[in-house]
Amino acid sequence: MALVVQKFGGTSVANPDRMRVVADHVARCQRRGDSVVLVISAMGKETDELLHMASQVSDTRPGREMDMLITAGERKACALLCMALAGAGVEAQSFTGSQAGFLTDSNHRNAKIMSITPGRIADAIAAGIVPVVAGSQGVSAERNVTFLGRGGSDTTAVALAQVLGADVCELYTDVSGVYSADPRIVPKAQKMTHITFDELLEMTATGCPKPAMRSVEVAHNHQVNLHIRSAFTWETGTLVTQEVPEMEQPIIRAVTHDLSESKVTVSDVPDRPGVSAGIFRALANANVNVDMIVQNVSEEGTTDISFTVPTEDLARAEEILASEAVTSLGVDRIGADNTIGRVSVIGAGMKSNPGVAATMFETLAENDINIGMISTSAIRVSCVIDADRCEEAVQLLHTVYGLDAADR
Amino acid sequence: MALVVQKFGGTSVANPDRMRVVADHVARCQRRGDSVVLVISAMGKETDELLHMASQVSDTRPGREMDMLITAGERKACALLCMALAGAGVEAQSFTGSQAGFLTDSNHRNAKIMSITPGRIADAIAAGIVPVVAGSQGVSAERNVTFLGRGGSDTTAVALAQVLGADVCELYTDVSGVYSADPRIVPKAQKMTHITFDELLEMTATGCPKPAMRSVEVAHNHQVNLHIRSAFTWETGTLVTQEVPEMEQPIIRAVTHDLSESKVTVSDVPDRPGVSAGIFRALANANVNVDMIVQNVSEEGTTDISFTVPTEDLARAEEILASEAVTSLGVDRIGADNTIGRVSVIGAGMKSNPGVAATMFETLAENDINIGMISTSAIRVSCVIDADRCEEAVQLLHTVYGLDAADR
Repeated sequence: MALVVQKFGGTSVANPDRMRVVADHVARCQRRGDSVVLVISAMGKETDELLHMASQVSDTRPGREMDMLITAGERKACALLCMALAGAGVEAQSFTGSQAGFLTDSNHRNAKIMSITPGRIADAIAAGIVPVVAGSQGVSAERNVTFLGRGGSDTTAVALAQVLGADVCELYTDVSGVYSADPRIVPKAQKMTHITFDELLEMTATGCPKPAMRSVEVAHNHQVNLHIRSAFTWETGTLVTQEVPEMEQPIIRAVTHDLSESKVTVSDVPDRPGVSAGIFRALANANVNVDMIVQNVSEEGTTDISFTVPTEDLARAEEILASEAVTSLGVDRIGADNTIGRVSVIGAGMKSNPGVAATMFETLAENDINIGMISTSAIRVSCVIDADRCEEAVQLLHTVYGLDAADR
Repeated sequence: MALVVQKFGGTSVANPDRMRVVADHVARCQRRGDSVVLVISAMGKETDELLHMASQVSDTRPGREMDMLITAGERKACALLCMALAGAGVEAQSFTGSQAGFLTDSNHRNAKIMSITPGRIADAIAAGIVPVVAGSQGVSAERNVTFLGRGGSDTTAVALAQVLGADVCELYTDVSGVYSADPRIVPKAQKMTHITFDELLEMTATGCPKPAMRSVEVAHNHQVNLHIRSAFTWETGTLVTQEVPEMEQPIIRAVTHDLSESKVTVSDVPDRPGVSAGIFRALANANVNVDMIVQNVSEEGTTDISFTVPTEDLARAEEILASEAVTSLGVDRIGADNTIGRVSVIGAGMKSNPGVAATMFETLAENDINIGMISTSAIRVSCVIDADRCEEAVQLLHTVYGLDAADR
């Protein structure tokens, strides 16, 4: 008999049929003797629809009101799922973020969890009632409703699993686990039975869409066992652990790619202290999420700085770079490229296996794929290349590193 | 400078354009020096859509979860209206029923307000912020979300006006006031500039769709000034007061009709104590709302009882009447007629003017309209007639009582 937190995302509860399927699954788990706590996202595309409606109403959209609006989606889904559970003979109660005890900071639209006092959730579990918790929401010290941001339901589930001392946090989604590459691009991609937190973090940071990176960080920091699995096939998915149990692991475990970023190049930047800092401080103040940064030192007292930003932030980044705060630093030549892709190879095994990066560069070079930027971590190498060569690069690298299913 | 509670219903805030129109109106009121508190219903048909979705998910729909679901509609509308207000330069904050201090009983789907502690609303007013309160909702002593029922936003507005000591409670709707009859049926129907609470109560009880009867009761009991007006033309509507100020009022002020009820007849009921009580207790326990009741005493120890119920409750009523609890009383002959209409004439003036009822019966008789049931109050006479003669009866009576516009 285990205590299991199960999180279901938007596609898993997109319509009444799906709600009943999930309810039946919970009923089966309960019959098996498990205590289940559910965390639910808004149905299907509802969050997008609410955002669209807000944009139609006004150009001025206070964060406090956006959070009041968006969190309605999760409330509805929780209430409906409780009805589906009642229909399946499972006693259940919905809880808003506030009712579940999620106290957050006041950073509306992207609030952080400060503490959780899950008294009502614990009481429900003790009474044999399945608590159904609205994902990605809480209440601030000022008693305002807050939203944890997109993908925040994963974080709600992991944090709740930690504070309740759950045996496992199951993140149900529309894929059956974490794959060695995107199966739509690499037909021979394999589902991984195990993955380390470090590897999963690098993957989510470089294009693997699920689960949300923030929730993996929380799970890693608090040693919450994660199980990423499908709400459609119900098969065993990918277990996320501190260490992968097998003795011999492939050096590289996955190849990811990301087409959602653009590259910005700032040329002829005066090469003196404080200039880079001024640029990136200005971007950070505007909440532009800067990722890979490469700086070349020239010999004439100026330098070029390139970095990537989410393409959706590109216009804002260009605006910031053209603002007085940045131009006063002596910056005036700005280039942008929104046709880039990033391909990354990831594996804890590369720590003790030199030559991983060289193999990657050689493979790309042999196929006339030009590398625009490079960044590395202890268990990852990423290259920025042309967007239209990205799929091909993923396929080549998946084969070169011995990940294709038939090779193993 | 006045403190005004303004309630906007579903059609008034049905889409982004309407939200902005309402926001502009509030901005004008504020520029005029008024302090405004808003109460908002769910947008358009959203409540119906949520009810429909719930019915698709499960046949078992706990009241607690229905309330969690339905109240999401008002939250969304409030948040969006705050954005529209921000766009119009008006500082505003949304408040759920719980945040606004509405403590209710635990009667889910139809909760009653127990007390209001509007500290946050008063603070917002004092700070020059327009509070935007979600209508028809509160929180129970068990800290569960509760819904006050359909039309509950009117009650929220009136109760809030009372506890805040507002100068007036304006109920904005899609009609421009209270009319002497439904203008769709009687083209010469006139908008009433004033109406008494008693008259309005009788009208809402007999088919006048707005405002919700319960809110009129609260306003009457607590002497809250009501103003029923249009959110589309913004013209002055109908003021509801304790006494109509004019010296001479027409005896009859309005003719209403209602096609939403059905007639149930229970025949050959044993004429002994406790039988009627048993029947109506069983119906009340099933929440069937019984209205007009007529009982004929026969000479053979049995009697016939007829009463009206909302047609939507008819199936339930028939089920109850066929149940053991009722058949054990010796009741077995039940008839139902869902083709009835009720026409009512209403006016405080009839108290001191005998013959009003006689005029009504004569008018119907002269036009071969058969009367099935009659009920009266001090300021109302109602007749049940064939549904398909109802419009004609309203037109005839509106003329007979001198209410047609051209006659005055």
